[in-house]
Amino acid sequence: ASESNLIRVTLFPGDGIGPEIAESVKQVFKAADVPVEWEEHYVGKEVDPRTQSFLTWESLESVRRNKVGLKGPMATPIGKGHRSLNLTLRKELNLYANVRPCYSLPGYKTKHDDVDLITIRENTEGEYSGLEHQVVRGVVESLKIITRHASLRVAEYAFHYANAHGRERVSAIHKANIMQKTDGLFLKCCREVAEKYPEIKYEEVVIDNCCMMLVKNPSLFDVLVMPNLYGDIISDLCAGLIGGLGLTPSCNIGEGGIALAEAVHGSAPDIAGQNKANPTALLLSGVSMLRHLDLHDKADKIQNAVLNTIAEGKYRTGDLGGKSTTTDFTKAICDHL
Amino acid sequence: ASESNLIRVTLFPGDGIGPEIAESVKQVFKAADVPVEWEEHYVGKEVDPRTQSFLTWESLESVRRNKVGLKGPMATPIGKGHRSLNLTLRKELNLYANVRPCYSLPGYKTKHDDVDLITIRENTEGEYSGLEHQVVRGVVESLKIITRHASLRVAEYAFHYANAHGRERVSAIHKANIMQKTDGLFLKCCREVAEKYPEIKYEEVVIDNCCMMLVKNPSLFDVLVMPNLYGDIISDLCAGLIGGLGLTPSCNIGEGGIALAEAVHGSAPDIAGQNKANPTALLLSGVSMLRHLDLHDKADKIQNAVLNTIAEGKYRTGDLGGKSTTTDFTKAICDHL
Ligand SMILES: CC(C)[C@H](C(=O)O)[C@@H](O)C(=O)O
Ligand SMILES: CC(C)[C@H](C(=O)O)[C@@H](O)C(=O)O
Repeated sequence: ASESNLIRVTLFPGDGIGPEIAESVKQVFKAADVPVEWEEHYVGKEVDPRTQSFLTWESLESVRRNKVGLKGPMATPIGKGHRSLNLTLRKELNLYANVRPCYSLPGYKTKHDDVDLITIRENTEGEYSGLEHQVVRGVVESLKIITRHASLRVAEYAFHYANAHGRERVSAIHKANIMQKTDGLFLKCCREVAEKYPEIKYEEVVIDNCCMMLVKNPSLFDVLVMPNLYGDIISDLCAGLIGGLGLTPSCNIGEGGIALAEAVHGSAPDIAGQNKANPTALLLSGVSMLRHLDLHDKADKIQNAVLNTIAEGKYRTGDLGGKSTTTDFTKAICDHL
Repeated sequence: ASESNLIRVTLFPGDGIGPEIAESVKQVFKAADVPVEWEEHYVGKEVDPRTQSFLTWESLESVRRNKVGLKGPMATPIGKGHRSLNLTLRKELNLYANVRPCYSLPGYKTKHDDVDLITIRENTEGEYSGLEHQVVRGVVESLKIITRHASLRVAEYAFHYANAHGRERVSAIHKANIMQKTDGLFLKCCREVAEKYPEIKYEEVVIDNCCMMLVKNPSLFDVLVMPNLYGDIISDLCAGLIGGLGLTPSCNIGEGGIALAEAVHGSAPDIAGQNKANPTALLLSGVSMLRHLDLHDKADKIQNAVLNTIAEGKYRTGDLGGKSTTTDFTKAICDHL
């Protein structure tokens, strides 16, 4: 790839094991000859008044300019007067849809071997409004906000995604039997969008029932779309089905075509710097990012190399019951390319 | 048991398969010589203005008087101008805690064989406030209400229950990293109560993480206490781990010592009247009710008979992969007594 054809991607290596797994991604992408140029940004050491968080304004500008980014785990520093890093990113970049593919990894055994679903979470409103107050002493309330705008937007994305990825069904997850107005509006928007995609099946599933079905038979589901908190809960539940957050990719979609892919697991300070971290979630998030860029050949190539390396079982990191270092696992993936 | 020693219990057989499984409970309780006298009440054919629902005022009065009841599935009739039957019961009887023991049934194989936990759900407020409104066209909000009163009350019940049942740990489930004021107050109340029970371990687990842990390793949990919606979600998830709502008991605890045990599965109109229904959830709910009445001998006896019948595997209803009728399964349980 010649200089001018390179796609500039903002890279947040993040904290703890972040730099190690980011290094792994850089090596694998290089070995796969992916035409990217990384623009690295780190979390600042103090609150940037322009973002009210430890994220620097420059780093957000970088994502806005490049329209595509990859993010490792960030440990939100404790203390008052600043916002969580994840929430700041969602808010500042208007990352309205969080997309998490979740599939059983061949050769890595869990209690389920038939998971293949996508959770699409509304990422900007609902129970995350931040609007809370004390009514009187001992009585507090928080507001869940659902708007037609944000509901249509995430529903559109879900059907667009299902269509583009050859998926058959979209399930809207809700509790409209209790929250008739808020979740009811969310469902109404989903139905409107569903009508534009007659070839995609559409169904509505109550969240409690959905969770029961997911643990009994996850193969019943295909694409799931839902309000913020339900998405938070169900995406983690689904990750649990296939082995945990260390294995699942995530990609946030923002207005204006922005995509910020991220590993959603923690920064694992206990093993940071010890060459023990599993880079799978960040690698597969990188794959999601490549699919967003329509670089499906490269995405397939890297995804297969990661999955085959795990399936073979010779090189696995400690979290998967193996003894490999991050660098050996990474090298094995590069050898599979 | 002589007439005067009989405990009067309100029985709502309910709809669909309700009368058949209620009949099963009556037979098993009789065979076990449980000193109860049933006072049967049915859901009315029209809305009772005093309850604004199809539940009659007399039936609620019966529970208030007897302080103990057992309830089969009720199908809320569709239409406007009345409240859901379940919600009416919770509201009118102030049923503040919903207790659901959930344990793997010996001999009935699911993906998990090590489940043994209790979910205790706040049952009166939170996301179920019913307070919703449209702010402007396309923007709706619903209010989640958390009070010190209701949070302390359910936390007290959870620790009391853990203590009385020899449980080691109580986990409060929350999303206080996002809803700092509402879920924060809930946690504060749990901590206050926890201090009074130094011999019981106390921990706090974020709901998304809790769901992931539950599907990976449910044996990590013991007693879980949480706000209304989280309880709704997690209790169904847990039921899924051991086979579904047809197998899990539930008991609602109200002010003034009221206990209303219930089967939380649906009324299964498709198999109603065909002698095919599985009475396990209602039987085990009856067991929960007996424990609430401190009739542990009878409770143990019936619980063992039900579990042994299922474990033996000779008599199982269709939902468990068998071919037994409700009456044959019931007879087998009575034979085990
Ligand atoms: C860390 C937390 C604020 C966040 C959320 O609740 O959204 C996390 O659970 C996630 O899913 O990204
Ligand atoms: C039917 C519905 C209103 C109810 C609830 O949400 O509480 C049910 O799911 C339950 O758990 O009893």
